[in-house]
Formats: sequence, C-alpha cells, structure tokens
Amino acid sequence: MNFASDNIAGAAAPVLDALVKGAGPDAPPALPYGSDPVTARVQAALDALFERETTAFPVATGTAANALALAALCPPYGTVYCHRHAHIEEDECGAPEFFTGGAKLTLIDGPDGKITPAALADTLACAGAGVVHHVQPAAVSLTQATECGTVYTIEELAALSRVAHAYGLPVHLDGARFANAVATLGCTAAEMTWKAGIDVVSFGATKNGCLAAEAVVFFTHRDQATAFGFRRKRAGHLFSKMRTISLQLEAYLADGLWLELARTANARARSLHDGLTACAGIEPVFPLGANVMFLKIPKPVADGLRADGFVFIPRGGEDVYRLVTPFNADPAAIDAMIARAAALTAGRQAAE
Amino acid sequence: MNFASDNIAGAAAPVLDALVKGAGPDAPPALPYGSDPVTARVQAALDALFERETTAFPVATGTAANALALAALCPPYGTVYCHRHAHIEEDECGAPEFFTGGAKLTLIDGPDGKITPAALADTLACAGAGVVHHVQPAAVSLTQATECGTVYTIEELAALSRVAHAYGLPVHLDGARFANAVATLGCTAAEMTWKAGIDVVSFGATKNGCLAAEAVVFFTHRDQATAFGFRRKRAGHLFSKMRTISLQLEAYLADGLWLELARTANARARSLHDGLTACAGIEPVFPLGANVMFLKIPKPVADGLRADGFVFIPRGGEDVYRLVTPFNADPAAIDAMIARAAALTAGRQAAE
Amino acid sequence: MNFASDNIAGAAAPVLDALVKGAGPDAPPALPYGSDPVTARVQAALDALFERETTAFPVATGTAANALALAALCPPYGTVYCHRHAHIEEDECGAPEFFTGGAKLTLIDGPDGKITPAALADTLACAGAGVVHHVQPAAVSLTQATECGTVYTIEELAALSRVAHAYGLPVHLDGARFANAVATLGCTAAEMTWKAGIDVVSFGATKNGCLAAEAVVFFTHRDQATAFGFRRKRAGHLFSKMRTISLQLEAYLADGLWLELARTANARARSLHDGLTACAGIEPVFPLGANVMFLKIPKPVADGLRADGFVFIPRGGEDVYRLVTPFNADPAAIDAMIARAAALTAGRQAAE
Amino acid sequence: MNFASDNIAGAAAPVLDALVKGAGPDAPPALPYGSDPVTARVQAALDALFERETTAFPVATGTAANALALAALCPPYGTVYCHRHAHIEEDECGAPEFFTGGAKLTLIDGPDGKITPAALADTLACAGAGVVHHVQPAAVSLTQATECGTVYTIEELAALSRVAHAYGLPVHLDGARFANAVATLGCTAAEMTWKAGIDVVSFGATKNGCLAAEAVVFFTHRDQATAFGFRRKRAGHLFSKMRTISLQLEAYLADGLWLELARTANARARSLHDGLTACAGIEPVFPLGANVMFLKIPKPVADGLRADGFVFIPRGGEDVYRLVTPFNADPAAIDAMIARAAALTAGRQAAE
Repeated sequence: MNFASDNIAGAAAPVLDALVKGAGPDAPPALPYGSDPVTARVQAALDALFERETTAFPVATGTAANALALAALCPPYGTVYCHRHAHIEEDECGAPEFFTGGAKLTLIDGPDGKITPAALADTLACAGAGVVHHVQPAAVSLTQATECGTVYTIEELAALSRVAHAYGLPVHLDGARFANAVATLGCTAAEMTWKAGIDVVSFGATKNGCLAAEAVVFFTHRDQATAFGFRRKRAGHLFSKMRTISLQLEAYLADGLWLELARTANARARSLHDGLTACAGIEPVFPLGANVMFLKIPKPVADGLRADGFVFIPRGGEDVYRLVTPFNADPAAIDAMIARAAALTAGRQAAE
Repeated sequence: MNFASDNIAGAAAPVLDALVKGAGPDAPPALPYGSDPVTARVQAALDALFERETTAFPVATGTAANALALAALCPPYGTVYCHRHAHIEEDECGAPEFFTGGAKLTLIDGPDGKITPAALADTLACAGAGVVHHVQPAAVSLTQATECGTVYTIEELAALSRVAHAYGLPVHLDGARFANAVATLGCTAAEMTWKAGIDVVSFGATKNGCLAAEAVVFFTHRDQATAFGFRRKRAGHLFSKMRTISLQLEAYLADGLWLELARTANARARSLHDGLTACAGIEPVFPLGANVMFLKIPKPVADGLRADGFVFIPRGGEDVYRLVTPFNADPAAIDAMIARAAALTAGRQAAE
Repeated sequence: MNFASDNIAGAAAPVLDALVKGAGPDAPPALPYGSDPVTARVQAALDALFERETTAFPVATGTAANALALAALCPPYGTVYCHRHAHIEEDECGAPEFFTGGAKLTLIDGPDGKITPAALADTLACAGAGVVHHVQPAAVSLTQATECGTVYTIEELAALSRVAHAYGLPVHLDGARFANAVATLGCTAAEMTWKAGIDVVSFGATKNGCLAAEAVVFFTHRDQATAFGFRRKRAGHLFSKMRTISLQLEAYLADGLWLELARTANARARSLHDGLTACAGIEPVFPLGANVMFLKIPKPVADGLRADGFVFIPRGGEDVYRLVTPFNADPAAIDAMIARAAALTAGRQAAE
Repeated sequence: MNFASDNIAGAAAPVLDALVKGAGPDAPPALPYGSDPVTARVQAALDALFERETTAFPVATGTAANALALAALCPPYGTVYCHRHAHIEEDECGAPEFFTGGAKLTLIDGPDGKITPAALADTLACAGAGVVHHVQPAAVSLTQATECGTVYTIEELAALSRVAHAYGLPVHLDGARFANAVATLGCTAAEMTWKAGIDVVSFGATKNGCLAAEAVVFFTHRDQATAFGFRRKRAGHLFSKMRTISLQLEAYLADGLWLELARTANARARSLHDGLTACAGIEPVFPLGANVMFLKIPKPVADGLRADGFVFIPRGGEDVYRLVTPFNADPAAIDAMIARAAALTAGRQAAE
C-alpha cells in the first residue's frame, strides 16, 4: 500500500536471477572495470534496442548518469537549459554543477512539466552566445517521462531538438522513466531518441525493476564519449566488478522485460488514477502519462487514506499529492485504496 | 587460474542470498535513499564492529569512498599526504582532486609501500602551513593493506597518527583490503583504526566478497560527517534503492563473514607465495602481508605460466608481476600453478 | 558624450598621483604579496571607514571580489540567494559557480532590482534545508546600488538581513557602486553594512575613480576570512606588487575622495535624468537611486541621439536604454544631450 | 639594498607615464573589457614581437596567466608535466588544480631547475595514456628563466617540445622572467617560443618593470584560445578598465623597453654574483642565467650582511640564499654588498 515512489520496490526476479547466476562465488572470473563479456553484451543489446551503433556506459544511479552526461556536453563556462522542475535542478543537490566544474542550469517554465519549443526558442534567442559576460549555451536537457508524470510526444521531442540544434546545442534526455514513456507512446526506443534528434540519453533501469543500473548512451559526440570514460572513473562510478551493473542491464533488456515491467507499472497507474479521480473531489493535476500521478485530494480524504496506511507524499502545492506505482504494485492494494477513497469522499458528500 | 585481481571474483553466497531475500519483487517496500531498516542495521553493525559510535555512509566503490572521505577532510586549497604509490594517487584518475575541488596530493616515498613516521614528520616540518603561496596541509591518507600487499603494524599506524595529529591533521585509512589486514594482524577493527588514531576509514568490502559495497566510517569530525551526506548525493553516490548496498554489507558483517573470507584469501596467498618462491629464481619483492604479492619471476617462467593459462599481470618493474588471491581462489589452481612453476624453473636450472 | 558605463572612465587624479608617487622606479622597495605598509594602511583606513575592526582583502575586480566572498561563505553543495538580475547571476560568466566549486544561485524576483524581505522569507521557507536532495541554503547576496540603479533603504537592508539571519545565513553585499549608494542615502558606511546586518561586503572602487581596486571586507566569519587568503592566492588574485591596488584604495579612501566622487556622479545622473525625462515621451523605468538610469526613449529619439554621438546602450526591454554617469561625466555633454533630446522630442510632437 | 625579489620594485617610469597619460580623468572614454584601442594595439605589438599572428590575453598576475593557460590546455582528468620546483607546483597554492577543475601536476626532477628531454621522454613513456585509471597526459609546462635562475637553451627547448609533441602534448612556457631569458640568450622572442615548439606562453611583465601586467599568448590551439576568454572572465581576470593592464604592456613593449630593463637587471645580477662569489667561501649553487641567483654563503657572513641591512632570503637548503636584482637595482648597493661581503669573508679567513 506504498505509492511513495518507484524506488521503494526491489528488483524484478530475472534481474536478481542474473546476479545470482552470473556473479556468484562459482561464476567464472571476469576482468574488472567493464572488460568483461557481460558488459560487452550489454553494449550490443543497447545497439540492438536503439537500432544503431551507440557508445554506452553503465552506471549505478540516475544522478550519476545525468551529471556525467551533462559534464561531457557542457564546459565549465556553459549552461544547460532545462525545465524549472527538472530532476537535475531540484533533486540532485547540485550534481550537474559539480560534475561540469561549475556550469549553470538555465530554467525554463512550461505547463505539465514540459518545455515548449517556443519557450526554448525564446530563451535561446537572448542567451548571450559569444558574449564573454554570460555563461554559454551548451546543451538542452529534457526529461521523459517528466517529473510531473507527463510524456512528451515524439513530435514535441523532435521540435525541441530542432530548436536546440539550430543553436548548435546537443540534446540530452533524462530517461529515468524511459521505459514508462516508451510504453505510453507505443513507439520504439529509437523513435523516442535519436530519430527525434536526441544526442545522449540517460537510460534508466533502476526505477523499473533493477537495483542500481542505468546506462548513458551516446548517439553522437564521439569525442565526448571518449572523455566520458575518464570522467566516470574519476567520479568513482566505474565499478570494479562491473558485471554487477551489466548483469542487471542484460536481464532487463532481454526478452522485452524492460517494456513489460513498464507496461505493468503504467497499467497500475492508470487503474489507480482512474479509480481515485472517479471519487468526488479528487482531481488530476496533470494528464497521466506514465506511472506517476499528481492528484488534488481534499485534505480530510488524504489524511484518512494515510491514516489507513496508504503511503503517498504531499508534493507540489496545497492538497496536491504524488502517487507512483512501481512495476510490482499490488492490484489489491490499488483496489483497496480506491475503495477507501470512495468511502471517504462519499462520506464527505453526505455530510455536506 | 586467474590471479589478476580480487576484483575478478563474484560475490560470496551469503551476500547474494541477502540480495535475493531482501530486494526481490516480493520484499516489503523500503524507503529510498537510506531511510530503510537495513541501512539502519548496517550502521549498528559497524558500531558493533568498531566498538563505538560511528557515523557511516555506504557507497558502492572504493574510489567514491576515498574521494568523498578526503573531500570531507580537505579544503580545495589543501593537500593530502600519501604514499607515492597510493591508490588515490595512481589509480583513481584524479578522483581526490575532483571531489575536493582541486586539492593536491603530496607524495611521500617509503619502502614496501609504507610511509614511515620519520618521513611524514620530515615532510610536514617543511609543509608551509600558514603560508599563502602553498597548499595547506589538510589530511594524511594511509592504505591498509598497502598497494604492495604489505601491512602496517598497529604501532606503525599509531606512530603515523601521532605525527599527523601533532600537526593538526586527521588521518584517513584507505581500507580497500581492510579485512585482509585485520586477518593478518590478528587484531580488532577498533585496534586497527580509532584506537591507533585513525579518524576516518574507507571500509572496503567489494574486493572481499561483495559486489559493490564500501562504507565510509567517521570516528571523529562530526561536522564533516554531516556535510558528507550532501557530498555523497551530489556525487551521484546516494543510491535510491540503498538496500542494494546495505544488504551486502549486512551479510558481510554478519557472523564474522568478512573476517572468514579475508582469512581464506590470505591463506591462499600464503600458499601461492610460499610455493612459488620455493622455486629457483622466483623471489618476493615485498614481504607478504595480505592477499596481494609482487614476485620477481624470470621472464621465460612467467611467459610459460601465462601461456598455460595462469593469469597475472606485470607490474612494478622488470620481471615483476602482481598476483592476487580472491576469497574464492581455487586451491587446486594454486597447486597447479606451483607445480607448473616448479617444472619450468627446474627445466631452466637443468638447461644452465 | 559617452554614457555607456562608469567603466569607460579612467582614474581620478589623486589615485593616479598615488601610483606615481608610491610605485615608481625610485619608490622604496616594498615587500610583495601585501606585506607592505600601504596595504596595512588600507586595512586601517577601512576599519576607520566602517568604524570597527574588519578583515579586508584588496582585489582588482568586482567579479573576483564577489566570487571569492561567496566561495568563503557557501560550500560546494550550497546555494546563494540573489535577485534574478544580480550581477553575480547575469554578468560574471558563472564566476560564483566556479569559485564555490559548483554551488548554485537561487534567483528571487522583485521590483526595481530589489528583493523584498517577504519574497526572501517565502523562498527560504521552502528551501529544503537539511534535505539531502537539495542544495543547501548558504548565503544571501544583495546588490547596493542595484543593477537597476535603485538603492535599498537602510531599513530594507536590515529587514532582509533579519530574515537571512533567522535562517542562519550570512549576508553578502555586492557594493560595486557602494559609494553611490552611501551618497544617495546620506548614511555612513557602517550604517549601510554591519549595522544593518551585512556580514561581508564587496567594497567597490573601480567604477568610481580607481583603475582596478576593490576590497572584500569581513565584519564577521573570522574563519572564512582566514581561508579567504588562500582562496585569493589560488585564484591568481593576490598581487605580487600589491601596492598597485593598495595605493589606489588609500587615495580613494583619503579625505573623503570616494564620497565626493560618488556625489558628483550621482549629481550628474540626476541632471541627466531630470533633463531627459522632462522631454515628452522619455520616461524612467526605475526610480533613480545612484548614477545609473534606465529610460524608455522613443526609438526615433534614441536613434537620433546616438547618431549625434551620444553613446548609451539598449538594455532591459523594448525602447529601454541604460545611461550611466561616471565620476568625471562632463556637465556640458549632459546639457548637450538634454538639449538634443528636447529638440528631437519637440520635433516628434510637432509632427504628430 | 633589498635583493629579496624582483617584486619589491615599483614600475619603470614609461609604464607609469603611460597610465597617467592614458587613464587619467581627462583621457577619452574607452570601451570596457578590452574593447578599447590600447588593448588592440597591444595585440598588434605582441604579434610584432613574436613575428606572427597570435591570440593574446592580458591578465594582471603570473598565477592567473599560468593557471588560465593550463586550464585551456588540460582537461579536468588530465595532468601537466612540469619540474618538481616549478612555480606552478610550489608557489601558486594549487591554482592550476583550481582552474583546470582538478587536474594534476606530474613532477619531473632535473638539475638546475631544468627538465631534460630524456627525463620527459621517460616519464611520458609510462604515462598510462588511454588507461582509464590514470590521469591523462595533457600538456608540458616549462619555466624560462627557471625558478633556479637558470635558462634553457633554444636547443633544449626545441628538444623538449619535440618530445612533448611526439606524444601529442602542447607545450606551455611560464615566462614570468621571459625578458631576462631572452636577454641572456640573445635570441628573439620568436626563437625562444614558437620557433622552438612552444604553443602557449605566459609572457610576464610584472617582475620586469610593470605593476601588474602579463599576457597569455597562444601560437596554436585556436579553439582553446576562444574558450580562454570565457575562462578569464569567470575567473574574475577580465578587467573592466582593461587599459589599466594594456597601457602597461604597450609601454613595456614600445622601443624595446622590456629588453632594456631585462638587460639591466641581468647585468646587475652578474655584477652582484661575480663580486660575491669572488669572496672566499661564497659559492654559486646554480649557473647564473638571469637576474636570480642562489648562493651558498657561510652563515656568519650571511648573518653579518643581513644585520647590515642587506635583504635576501634563505631558500633551498642549508646556507643557501636567493638574491634577485630587479630592473632598478642600485649599483651602489651592489658594490656596497660586495665590499661588505669581502670584509666579512676576509675577517673569517684571518680568524682561521
């Protein structure tokens, strides 16, 4: 009955199985620091997923993936354009600033957690490129699915990339919930990334059934990808027993597990969302796009639900709560919560 | 037959079991970012291990542990004193410089990979403390067991700490092979750390039976420990599913597993070392102190062994090779290698 | 006829005289790096100016003063609260981020270039202090006179400082136009700084009659002041021939020159401002507070003035121009500009 | 009678004259931040001096020049090769580490403060280029004249550059005493720099008759030169009243003043050196190459000289003292010192 985050879940069974089989005491020795066959297979699997040659770097956390990717793209005197509520701005304790050596984030407002191409164009038009007093435009970072649980359409991504590229800026995609967005859009991983103009993606897996596994995937910027290896090492993000991450990713990518888990999480979110918003007085704040929802819930109702052990957190304004369904969210818990919310709201209506 | 590193091994069975039991899809949800009960239990287990209150921070890699610990102790305009061949100097691609914001490492020579108290005192005596042109003495970092596979005695550690403290400097211990050193010395973890004047330790577990698990343990410097939490987060080293690391550490610390694994690794090293050095022409470069040995091996012998599939790497000079026995080193492989070395060296003697 | 900036002016005569007398080939040798008697006298002069003991560090540029001061106050994982249009945000190419090792600036909106105490309080109330995901509140930076040419009252400064201090944050004052603000307020330097709760000030002199001379003055935060010396050196801002800066400051502080120059600059600004805004269609954007004004000028009028050789720059929006009067602004040029503007605007009215 | 440093001197008369004439209250307004005609003329003068097109950036201190130049050449994960006693290593409080974002300096030993081509080649041969665990070779920095007061021959510089270039590394020259070295070698500025393979030079003027004026001059690395402008600004080293520096440089470069001052300083050094070393028991430590000498002086003699008011500092070992003759060193003081030293040493001999 915990909808606080997708991070509260453990790992999917195939991911754990892979660790047990591939990294136990009797597993064959593996060369450290990524020179092992599992890591090579993950590179191949990512190439297959994205239907092209890529340069991929497994890391363990989303913050590491984002900050290392941005450090590869943005010089210390640069700035990265992102949404005001982007994870890189609000929830990484300054990691992009640390990894870039002191670059800035320039914040852009936009409805539903999304930057519009027009807002990006307006911002870039007065960015002071070439003027020595101003930090220099260096990259655009988009989040898919967004922090608001919404999803950019392919067309929106492509339009944003066109604006960025027109100014010579590469586009980074924070894909902490990459799979959930693909599941929602019904597109391919390629369509949602390089075919839409994305240059580098933080391909997230931790939230969606791994323990600690992400991959930074470069489609372009070969030189920066080379430098990435050194940046990862000196940031302490090159694992000696790299197969620890790679085995997770291999299992996650095999047989469409990544997509299946995301579809399940999304379906659970849809059930929870539709059930709750059918209750009088509970309203969505943003259109549901993945497995994260923000709902306006009357305080007595929210208090009642939380008193009954349903866990979810206030976030984003008065009476607004965030609920997240992980890949293993329990349908029974969802039904129970909806039923309890219905009872609580019905009681309120009767009392009015 | 791979003696290239202790990083080639997977994890000990209890460590994997803990992950399977504690982080599977059916495990109860756990609050993310370390607010889970496993992480709390690891703090308690480390307090018990060290026989005192500590402030501990799980991280996934040794480089992260070292660099974060040093960043907590050393301002950007400071310098850290360490052995010329310390891991932080030679093998972390500048991680301490990155995390500290550009501090220096000041290198001290010393036999067998060890700094002598006299050398430390001589260096600190002309360190330029208070002089604005010079980076300021900020910390001393010792490695136990050392990169040469040797081990400081308790008395040596205490003498070094006394010198450091006399200059107002805290002492950091890089304990990537902490357990191996304790096993060799037959002391307690407390005796090898704070009782000998160590202020902060990078307590390593990855090399000795975990997949990716270390802990930075503060005995002193409470304010810096508080800041550590923010530094860890912004470095991307705060795991959302923290129990991934904590479950490993919990299993590692339970029932003396950590010490048992280290004793085994050390015993294997002793067998390999004594067997090989009994062969004519094979000589130790440093006294064996843990599970790492450097041996001078005649090139034809080394070539023969490597041709036969024994994996070990040239390192540290002409005809010098490093061999490491992980916790799960196969006694049969050790015997086979010794036998083959004996044959190869006997053949050489006969030919002379 | 150049009103583009106060930086277009050279130095006041007493400042140059001081350099010629004190730093010529026949001047007595002076110990380098600030150990000279001139620098000692500047410290004493600043203590006298501020009517208390201070710790002062001469530097050559305003960006260095601000960024070094903020680096002393804000850890790498911290954030500095400032106005959205603060110089440290918009015109220093990320210097605060560089010097702090990657801290953030958190931007606060407010009319006339000023932060209101209420806006600061609202921002700090939801700053996430103590939460590991968020950069930590570390300092407040105010600009006096502001980038809009307005001036905080003593009461406003004191109210802002009270808010900051209630959250445990020190207050930095960017005083690039410190003297102009004092001249406007008719207060003492002490009243505008520590008596109003300011902890550290960037005391500017370059814009107001020096060539390159500022001083960072600490009223509190003794430990950070000690560290400042090392930070200044490693940033390349400790001059070997320090008297180059100190002689300027000594002359600037002697006999009230600083205030006299600022009063003149302000008076020139008042003349220019009142003359221009008396012309039909020319309107002030902000209330004039120092020697910087932003005026809305009909484009044909502005074009006409600029075609006639009056130099001033578009800035801050459509038909908005910034005009600045340096300490040596020529009254005749001011009269000429007003006359020309009057003719141009009269011509427009006639044509309508 | 002060031979402690060349930094104890003020400025040469033409340098001060230029400031008075070009930066007084009645001087024409100049666009700030280097967009003034004086700065343009300095660029032309440096092109003329070096007999080729260059990209030059005036800055105020040698530390800024060196650290900014190295930051342009060396990524955060790189290392700069320099002599163990280089100024960038010993006397800049970690400025290169700060400006590069945490790169390392790799120290090379060598007699007389000079790196030999063989030592450089040996070091680079085992530098670990391409290996992710090691900081990456990024640049070589030479000092001319050296910290020991010696001077590389053109052939030595060329040989070192060939080694560096063979490894793909650019060569930076710390020319804090550039003019003194040219005066000694009797070569051109071009011959001592790009014709010998130097890529970037810190062209020093402060020590040799300016107040605070250096220029970083790029011969190659055009992209890095472009980035330099942003790095300089965000480091607080772009002067608003840039002509403050440029006027000094213009006067310094005009009519061969720079070389004349250096020749004088060198000649004074030669007189002092030869006179002192003619005294019994006073011996040179390094061959005299510029205006800096290290002499072994019996302690009673040194004490006697210092008691009589001759200022010079112990440095570099027992009974070793450094003496420096600035451009305006007084021949009478030199004669007096020699006479006093002769008397003191004669007295000692008589007493023996």
